[in-house]
Amino acid sequence: MLNAVALIERKRDGGALLREEITALIRAYVAGEAPDYQMSAWLMAATIRGLDFAETAALTDAMLRSGRMVEVQSMRPLVDKHSTGGVGDKTSLVAVPLLVSLGFSVPKLSGRGLGHTGGTLDKLESIPGLRTALSPHEFASIVGRYGMAIAAQSEEIVPADRMLYALRDVTGTVQSLPLIASSIMSKKLAVSSRLIVLDVKVGDGAFFRDLAQAEEFAALAIDIGKAFGRSTRAVLTKMDAPLGRAVGNALEVREAIACLRGEGPADLEEVAVALAAEALCAVRGDRWEEARGKAQEALRSGDALGRLRRWVTTQGGDPRFVDDPTLLPQAARQRDLAAPRGGYVARLSARALGDAARLLGAGRLRKEDAIDLGAGIEILRGVGERVREGEAVLRLFAGSDAQLDAAQALLEGAMDVSDMAAGAGSHIVRRMGEEQA
Amino acid sequence: MLNAVALIERKRDGGALLREEITALIRAYVAGEAPDYQMSAWLMAATIRGLDFAETAALTDAMLRSGRMVEVQSMRPLVDKHSTGGVGDKTSLVAVPLLVSLGFSVPKLSGRGLGHTGGTLDKLESIPGLRTALSPHEFASIVGRYGMAIAAQSEEIVPADRMLYALRDVTGTVQSLPLIASSIMSKKLAVSSRLIVLDVKVGDGAFFRDLAQAEEFAALAIDIGKAFGRSTRAVLTKMDAPLGRAVGNALEVREAIACLRGEGPADLEEVAVALAAEALCAVRGDRWEEARGKAQEALRSGDALGRLRRWVTTQGGDPRFVDDPTLLPQAARQRDLAAPRGGYVARLSARALGDAARLLGAGRLRKEDAIDLGAGIEILRGVGERVREGEAVLRLFAGSDAQLDAAQALLEGAMDVSDMAAGAGSHIVRRMGEEQA
Repeated sequence: MLNAVALIERKRDGGALLREEITALIRAYVAGEAPDYQMSAWLMAATIRGLDFAETAALTDAMLRSGRMVEVQSMRPLVDKHSTGGVGDKTSLVAVPLLVSLGFSVPKLSGRGLGHTGGTLDKLESIPGLRTALSPHEFASIVGRYGMAIAAQSEEIVPADRMLYALRDVTGTVQSLPLIASSIMSKKLAVSSRLIVLDVKVGDGAFFRDLAQAEEFAALAIDIGKAFGRSTRAVLTKMDAPLGRAVGNALEVREAIACLRGEGPADLEEVAVALAAEALCAVRGDRWEEARGKAQEALRSGDALGRLRRWVTTQGGDPRFVDDPTLLPQAARQRDLAAPRGGYVARLSARALGDAARLLGAGRLRKEDAIDLGAGIEILRGVGERVREGEAVLRLFAGSDAQLDAAQALLEGAMDVSDMAAGAGSHIVRRMGEEQA
Repeated sequence: MLNAVALIERKRDGGALLREEITALIRAYVAGEAPDYQMSAWLMAATIRGLDFAETAALTDAMLRSGRMVEVQSMRPLVDKHSTGGVGDKTSLVAVPLLVSLGFSVPKLSGRGLGHTGGTLDKLESIPGLRTALSPHEFASIVGRYGMAIAAQSEEIVPADRMLYALRDVTGTVQSLPLIASSIMSKKLAVSSRLIVLDVKVGDGAFFRDLAQAEEFAALAIDIGKAFGRSTRAVLTKMDAPLGRAVGNALEVREAIACLRGEGPADLEEVAVALAAEALCAVRGDRWEEARGKAQEALRSGDALGRLRRWVTTQGGDPRFVDDPTLLPQAARQRDLAAPRGGYVARLSARALGDAARLLGAGRLRKEDAIDLGAGIEILRGVGERVREGEAVLRLFAGSDAQLDAAQALLEGAMDVSDMAAGAGSHIVRRMGEEQA
């Protein structure tokens, strides 16, 4: 019989749990033998006292073993890409076909958006017909044939993480690096990719608001990957302003397709290229600049766009929407927000724009909320760009005037215009991982 | 709407909650609006981060207000006595009638035993007919007429504490001084006594094993009492060996009656007299030695025994069992445990004897366990007394040989015999409270 109270007390007093104790605790929780109130007490003790690396790895393993593994067979190197979440973050829609174009296979299980950040699945569903609910068998088979698949994480994958995350969300135990890292990595490790590339967002609109925290998370995630025999790399990227110029599901798909045509915004292209280059460095031993050159070229050649089009068709989506993204859903009403003065756009708060997009109907506060695929925000003048007084900076899309009003009110103070032109600079803050060249 | 997560996060990060926030949290919990898993996360954060005095007082108040108050009318000063729990601790059965004999009224709500310590209600129920389930009205009326009543704490008194205690018990959040002090004091404050005298046990068989912790608890409890306008005193007493020579319900009642006849063991008499003297010092302004003299005299006069007899009759008990305690239940089987060598008894572990008494049937591990009122342990040779090799030191009473075997095994190593006679010394470690004379 598990003595849950003894394990809770040990963590409360700052002690460490053995691997088998963590395994037993998670197993008992998933089986309904350890109730929510014991698990939440343990989670709070772990959040305050921390978990050492052995405990973090054991927790990751225990969660991983709570569900089934997804075995994908492919002649090409299998790589997974994960983002810690940002505003306007449509990078996967660009980076995944780009990786396929560079010779990788990418089996990607994704989630839905919650709070101020969007989810890849929601974005993809603006393409009519596209199915993201695939059986593990179907998922593996599509990756094998087309080099990529993007699907919803099913109930069978890491159920312990789903249960624990729901509990953490309502008990003030989200903010713990070991709990965050084990949650993310358990989901990545459930798929048989040999390489995991993490896009760790840093800034106002990201989960990690400061660099030190993002670095600590990345180092921990890399170590967890290593402990499970997976090569793991992290690219830390800026998330102070939204990535690209579009926030909202169909708007972001349109921008991703433009990017795959070589017509995307520079920051989005830079981040997608960096993630693909990181995979080339890890698997082919390429040097960084050389790898970036290859990725850039593959993007501009149109080959990656072809990969996306083929994959969309395979998962039931209508390829005409890839060929002509103006067909994608658009919300009924729009409103422009003007610059309060002339000068240069100095700040566009990613968090405020993310929250505003949610109010416009593009996101959800609770899991059960419905989404307006055509709603969102278009950034007409981005950070570093010149603007005249009264000129439109943001264009809001929504189904109703009430939503436009709410978002507009929330966006008060979300932008700064200054007299000085500040260069936007690179969005790549730092690269982390083994054997960097 | 209560934002429970925000309050949990504030405590997690070491911040303090406002009085109205604590009130709202406890109210929501009692109403079933804040679930167990949120309360246990908050309790764990409070256990690790602590509660400041304002929070502790607010928590005490919130718990107190969750139930009804017991208003007792009496011309005599109302005093309550509480023990933090010990092995062989039948002090209430002596001190309460002694306080009545000294001119006080004592409205006492008691609990049942759990773990290695016994409860006053269980002990009293070895007197046939005695009812401890009284309505608040009946309770108050008996105190008014006879100067004392001892009854079970009903469901209507401080229900928040009962709910919280049950949750703390299974979530590793018992060991927190502010939570302990607010729990105990909320129950004392629910009865309208002007004076509260705490018997804070210290040692191997007590909840507080070291003096510093016991002192910290006593100081906090005294401050809480003061904040609610109640005079509060604490006597810290030793609990390394059992108090007196009897452990077990009927055995302890017999010993308490002997003590009220002036024939009790010195340590029990010393503690009961000290608690009564503390009340005299607080209410009459007596000096300590003078007060002890008065209490000693009242005990030896037989007046306190008369008070107990009258009260037993009032609550439905058969007074013949007070007159002739040999009539009290006795377990069917007994076994003596002998000294391993000759010398002086140097140690009798209170905790081991408490646990052994439970195995003999005198106590319970879970609330629903039944009790054998006649089971327990008699100490034939106490600490400091001379013993010959093979001479009986302990006499065990139980319903079956299996219970005797189990207790005997547990008592291995519970006693030490040495060559040197160590004086038992005073059981009073320290007195704490306001205006001590």
